[in-house]
Amino acid sequence: MKMTPHSVDDYQYMIDIHTRWNDNDVYGHINNAVYYTWFDTCVNNFLIENDLLDIGNSKTIGLVVDTGCQYFVPLSYPETVQTGLRVGRIGNSSVRYEIAVFGEGEKMAAAQGHFVHVYVDEKTRKPAAISAHMQDILSKLLPPG
Amino acid sequence: MKMTPHSVDDYQYMIDIHTRWNDNDVYGHINNAVYYTWFDTCVNNFLIENDLLDIGNSKTIGLVVDTGCQYFVPLSYPETVQTGLRVGRIGNSSVRYEIAVFGEGEKMAAAQGHFVHVYVDEKTRKPAAISAHMQDILSKLLPPG
Amino acid sequence: MKMTPHSVDDYQYMIDIHTRWNDNDVYGHINNAVYYTWFDTCVNNFLIENDLLDIGNSKTIGLVVDTGCQYFVPLSYPETVQTGLRVGRIGNSSVRYEIAVFGEGEKMAAAQGHFVHVYVDEKTRKPAAISAHMQDILSKLLPPG
Amino acid sequence: MKMTPHSVDDYQYMIDIHTRWNDNDVYGHINNAVYYTWFDTCVNNFLIENDLLDIGNSKTIGLVVDTGCQYFVPLSYPETVQTGLRVGRIGNSSVRYEIAVFGEGEKMAAAQGHFVHVYVDEKTRKPAAISAHMQDILSKLLPPG
Repeated sequence: MKMTPHSVDDYQYMIDIHTRWNDNDVYGHINNAVYYTWFDTCVNNFLIENDLLDIGNSKTIGLVVDTGCQYFVPLSYPETVQTGLRVGRIGNSSVRYEIAVFGEGEKMAAAQGHFVHVYVDEKTRKPAAISAHMQDILSKLLPPG
Repeated sequence: MKMTPHSVDDYQYMIDIHTRWNDNDVYGHINNAVYYTWFDTCVNNFLIENDLLDIGNSKTIGLVVDTGCQYFVPLSYPETVQTGLRVGRIGNSSVRYEIAVFGEGEKMAAAQGHFVHVYVDEKTRKPAAISAHMQDILSKLLPPG
Repeated sequence: MKMTPHSVDDYQYMIDIHTRWNDNDVYGHINNAVYYTWFDTCVNNFLIENDLLDIGNSKTIGLVVDTGCQYFVPLSYPETVQTGLRVGRIGNSSVRYEIAVFGEGEKMAAAQGHFVHVYVDEKTRKPAAISAHMQDILSKLLPPG
Repeated sequence: MKMTPHSVDDYQYMIDIHTRWNDNDVYGHINNAVYYTWFDTCVNNFLIENDLLDIGNSKTIGLVVDTGCQYFVPLSYPETVQTGLRVGRIGNSSVRYEIAVFGEGEKMAAAQGHFVHVYVDEKTRKPAAISAHMQDILSKLLPPG
């Protein structure tokens, strides 16, 4: 189950994340839970930039049903890290996103994990099929081959 | 890989967690990353209560190398939830903790996951063997059989 | 401007707050911003318990326009703290809440501050007058005299 | 007590802050407590960049004794905001920092506040006089006149 750190080349969509003072825990490293707030931010930034999410207005919203992360190298405030996003699998109403975190100027992941969204109707909270348009955009983040 | 929700009876060590206003995200549910702050709190409460951790003074500290969580039922502030802790595996210098979260008054887990600590020397950050005393205390949280 | 620490007797409404592992910052104390998450929680717990707020359904919501806190004594995870709430002033559409934080078993405040809500219509976000019913309930938290 | 929003021209030191998904609360705005995590980050970034703080190694650390913020205009994830820093007062062992937050592309503050650090010896936690070198650097952030 132990993963090998990925390279920045394995991820097509990258964003910078400015670390914050209180991301560090008492041991002087970014706390493990904080990585998941970055996963959330990376996935939602991608969805918003591609007009797949309009917070407060979208009829379909993504609920998180499964997350995981492996931590290879500690990171610390005040460095600016990068998160890379790719798509592991596109299901009928769910998407497995894969996210890696890179320390400032690093090419190999300091941590990497996943985040599974089930898309549901905002009102009924019942699963909603992923549109052909969304499938099309997400498929650009599938690994080649 | 999809887990079945556990029962409160599967966990020997339980603590209450008061949810907070800002644990809820924009959809009105506890954000997925917040569960990991509860995992941290549950594991460390257990270690502190059993004199296995004295923050700022312990010569051995636990670094988190692997975490994961599955979410079955949404939870929301202002409910008071419970987290249950058990030990999945005790290695030479690592421990796999398993944590479940129960909604207020509920017997079946709303979410459950794991959290792997590698114990290291506080100064050198090299792996440190788990003492017989700590093994003894942790083994009480191993599932029966 | 320097305040004198208040006593638990100065506050009518008290709730327990379980501190969390990641509330501590790198210096081993609760981070200053975390106190405001407790203020939020204390005020909203009171409103919810008194049927003055139903998250996601209330037609009137409180927007925070002014906050402040003075810190007298550091607090640290894993202690369970208490927050006390009183009302400083009830305006036409705004309320000044005053909150103090007490360390575990302590009678004098470790920190105290304020939090001003302006109540607005949930849709238009225009100021909404505080109902006589709400005034009545809040006035019970005004200091005597 | 109500402040007038400041301009970006009133602040000499500016940093970008990428907002995060979970900075938004249930009303779709940045939660009031999150601003203080930005204040912390802005002040500490400045201190670190000017070699006035080396986390985990500095003999003198800053404890926060007083904070406050007024909120003029709501901000929301996913915008990138800016925080501006200036120094309000340099005491013998304390500094009053003043911080303003600007929405993406905005010239007038969306929120502004303060943050008072008392500098103490890292071991004894007794007040430590601010060095002439630190006074010199901080005085560059005092408003003109």
